[in-house]
Amino acid sequence: MKIALAQLNYHIGNFESNAEKIISTARKAKENGADLVVFSELSVCGYCPCDLLEMADFVAECNATVEKIIAECADIPMIIGAPLTNEGNHGKRLYNAALFISDGNVKSQCKTLLPNANVLNEHRYFEASDKFDLVNLNGVKIAMVVGNDVLDYPMGMLAKLEPDFIVNISAVPYSHDNFHHQKLSEVAKKYKLPLLNVNQVGANTNLIYEGRSIAFNENGKVIAECKSFEEDLQYVETKSFKSEGEELCKNDTTESIFNAITLGLRDYFAKMNFKTAVLGLSGGIDSAVVLALAVNALGRENVHSILMPTCYSSSHSVDDSLEMLNRTKSSYNIIPIEDLRKQFGIAMSEAFEGTKPGLAEENIQARLRGSILMAYSNKFGNILLNTSNKSEEAVGYSTLYGDMCGSLSLLGDVYKTEVYRLARYINEHCGNIIPENIITKAPSAELRPDQKDQDSLPPYDILDGILNCYLENNMTADEIKAKGFDAETVDFVLKLVKRVEYKRFQAPPILRVSSCAFGHSQDVPLVARY
Amino acid sequence: MKIALAQLNYHIGNFESNAEKIISTARKAKENGADLVVFSELSVCGYCPCDLLEMADFVAECNATVEKIIAECADIPMIIGAPLTNEGNHGKRLYNAALFISDGNVKSQCKTLLPNANVLNEHRYFEASDKFDLVNLNGVKIAMVVGNDVLDYPMGMLAKLEPDFIVNISAVPYSHDNFHHQKLSEVAKKYKLPLLNVNQVGANTNLIYEGRSIAFNENGKVIAECKSFEEDLQYVETKSFKSEGEELCKNDTTESIFNAITLGLRDYFAKMNFKTAVLGLSGGIDSAVVLALAVNALGRENVHSILMPTCYSSSHSVDDSLEMLNRTKSSYNIIPIEDLRKQFGIAMSEAFEGTKPGLAEENIQARLRGSILMAYSNKFGNILLNTSNKSEEAVGYSTLYGDMCGSLSLLGDVYKTEVYRLARYINEHCGNIIPENIITKAPSAELRPDQKDQDSLPPYDILDGILNCYLENNMTADEIKAKGFDAETVDFVLKLVKRVEYKRFQAPPILRVSSCAFGHSQDVPLVARY
Repeated sequence: MKIALAQLNYHIGNFESNAEKIISTARKAKENGADLVVFSELSVCGYCPCDLLEMADFVAECNATVEKIIAECADIPMIIGAPLTNEGNHGKRLYNAALFISDGNVKSQCKTLLPNANVLNEHRYFEASDKFDLVNLNGVKIAMVVGNDVLDYPMGMLAKLEPDFIVNISAVPYSHDNFHHQKLSEVAKKYKLPLLNVNQVGANTNLIYEGRSIAFNENGKVIAECKSFEEDLQYVETKSFKSEGEELCKNDTTESIFNAITLGLRDYFAKMNFKTAVLGLSGGIDSAVVLALAVNALGRENVHSILMPTCYSSSHSVDDSLEMLNRTKSSYNIIPIEDLRKQFGIAMSEAFEGTKPGLAEENIQARLRGSILMAYSNKFGNILLNTSNKSEEAVGYSTLYGDMCGSLSLLGDVYKTEVYRLARYINEHCGNIIPENIITKAPSAELRPDQKDQDSLPPYDILDGILNCYLENNMTADEIKAKGFDAETVDFVLKLVKRVEYKRFQAPPILRVSSCAFGHSQDVPLVARY
Repeated sequence: MKIALAQLNYHIGNFESNAEKIISTARKAKENGADLVVFSELSVCGYCPCDLLEMADFVAECNATVEKIIAECADIPMIIGAPLTNEGNHGKRLYNAALFISDGNVKSQCKTLLPNANVLNEHRYFEASDKFDLVNLNGVKIAMVVGNDVLDYPMGMLAKLEPDFIVNISAVPYSHDNFHHQKLSEVAKKYKLPLLNVNQVGANTNLIYEGRSIAFNENGKVIAECKSFEEDLQYVETKSFKSEGEELCKNDTTESIFNAITLGLRDYFAKMNFKTAVLGLSGGIDSAVVLALAVNALGRENVHSILMPTCYSSSHSVDDSLEMLNRTKSSYNIIPIEDLRKQFGIAMSEAFEGTKPGLAEENIQARLRGSILMAYSNKFGNILLNTSNKSEEAVGYSTLYGDMCGSLSLLGDVYKTEVYRLARYINEHCGNIIPENIITKAPSAELRPDQKDQDSLPPYDILDGILNCYLENNMTADEIKAKGFDAETVDFVLKLVKRVEYKRFQAPPILRVSSCAFGHSQDVPLVARY
């Protein structure tokens, strides 16, 4: 038996396109001799439609698409993912199902363990299933299992029914610190069963799906693997289940973050029907990396930069930016904000009478820049890319409605120390486009004379170390201090993180590359005092 | 037996304050002869702490607070709400529990039906309980029931155990279209059991809790009722269970929205430790109502207005605003933005060369105003109040980083037609502070000559009618058209609502007064095409 792993990039709610992809891929696989074609979780509508599942007409379109696929692919056995109506009297009206379609007949296996922590809340839409059964294709018994059911007791229930192998359809959001493939390998070994996983690829707003669908033999060794971060179609012969297979390889973190952000940005533009981007280029490392990522993902002709110096900008800021633009060969404007800044001072002079210049005046510069970028965006339709990084987002070293403007944040889940690694990676792999001076100079917001980030914040390696303990590893202040970080610094950092929750509430969507990205899934009450 | 209904306003995570409130109220009730004092759901930490429940030290503080209350109130039988550790090996590590504390002993009843739709997702933090038992106080059998368990089968399970009455501790977010008290009355009637409900009062960021704790006799008639929107302590004698009771009365919608927003604003400031507010006063109805609400909730000395006219502002805009400020006797600045607007035009002239003035230029005015308001806020610490209404939020008739700026949106869940009713209510009940001309003139954003809202949008009664069908009543386009709305208008409105999801993603927290407020609980994927 030959099984096709169909790793596709679905567009949520774009039923026509999803159906077309599924049908044409099934036909292609059939032509190549496949006996079964497997698609990923909720493939008919794209994962995860969230609140759209509460709309009756959305669910009707899901069902119509399933019917269309059944009709068009009567001669091709396949497994697809779709919402399935709960015919019972109790609970949510839908299940999250794997559908086995063969000769026009449909058998289903529904998901039991619905994720509700972190970024996704399937409990809101789906009823959990407690029925477990195998499907049969030409005498071969297959355990279909949806999502993370494969990692827990539902897999045990299915294994008891003695299948010949496991087909796991999934949509696992990418994070560089989630070793999902390792877990799948262990499941295969534990149950002594070959395991075929088909994962979604592509990005939906902030969530990125790596793809990298994979097949393990019963020893947990790799016998087939789809590409990461792109569509792919691979085949597994059941006779290869007995082959020795290969060790699972570990991806390079910086490379995979680069690829994830590239896909995230590209898909955001493709799925929103956007073409051109704009960003503010400051001469610092963050905006330089964003420019490089954008030029790589969208094409240099689609990325416009705006330089907005004031009297506090160092001369090298503009020079370094121009040098980079010379290397990327992408378009730009220089719009000095010095006169606007002065005019703003005149406008505020009566209201501000008798006060000393301070944070308010610094923020005005950032907000004028935000307004200029948005004006350009409104005028020409270029989408504003946000250039904040995760370290800044965490401690609020940013201006709301200023440098926090943007439609999408590329680096909001990337710590500053990782931004530097991304810069080095880009210079090695995408042409040497970021000038060395941008990478080596001391970071500064340049909102007052001789300002440096390290005037207000601990050095970034310390800051990022503390943040990583607190955010990704959910450690308490005492636990972080016990790791050797200075107690006063830990308290200072955690206090900042808690205090600026209100800023993050209004931040743009952030491409998620870690297990703990900021964003709307982080449900911390703003008024809490803790 | 005399039972105290202790309706208090808790502050999430402020354990010292919450414990002090609970202990002093228990002592006061004891002095007044109470045999049992009942507090609301999760009273020790305040409802709902959400992600804070995932922090080990937060949970430790919850437990320490319970211990403190037990130690301090050994002689006062009480029911409190608290997270309870799940001692089992499976599932989430906490339950959402009612604790019956008597003579230093604790008995618990945990919540079964954990909300996960709409604004709250308790499944993320709590394990659902499947154990049902009564507690016994001096031979009287009491069914403790947490939250909406009272409305469904867990109540049935408890009723089978033949309690003498029901104590329901809850924290039900206010919405004018949720008739929760009616449902409680029906539960009492259905089981032929007296029902005592203690609800949380107060607001946490966007969620407002009405309080209005209530006791019903077994016929579903009211035998005691706490005040709405403030702390209260009422007593119920078990002998009054046999009294005839009174019909449940229905509150006036506009009055209750007014009171909800007032509490929401007041609590946001109190719990965030803010004192003074600032807003942009345009001469239109929305900002006038926000000024009136703020002056009423925070005191006229704590509310500062800024008027920011351009050449497109009508003369009556400034005059009407000044007339209103004369009536409220609150402070203001006039900061014309005409010179800034021109300077901005000069700054953009090269980049915008050859283009015609349009939306970009209109938005620049809104963003300059946003920047001025934020500058004032940064300088003096006044918190910026957002003045957008729900009709605008829905269709995106607003400028991101412009009039969408603010720390809190007071009217973001109030349709324009209801804003007018609020204005009339305010003039009747808070002194005649809104000039008649502000209420009667045609609404306009005044961003270009002779602009009127109705140039771009359907009349507000039509618009709000369609939005109400779609948002609060989850109707499809076809269903809305079948109600008699013009088909083209329905399609136009729904298209706008879907298209501007990205703007709402970055909106400030919105005080929720309906069952379908915009905000982070609305989990629609931005890139969806549907």
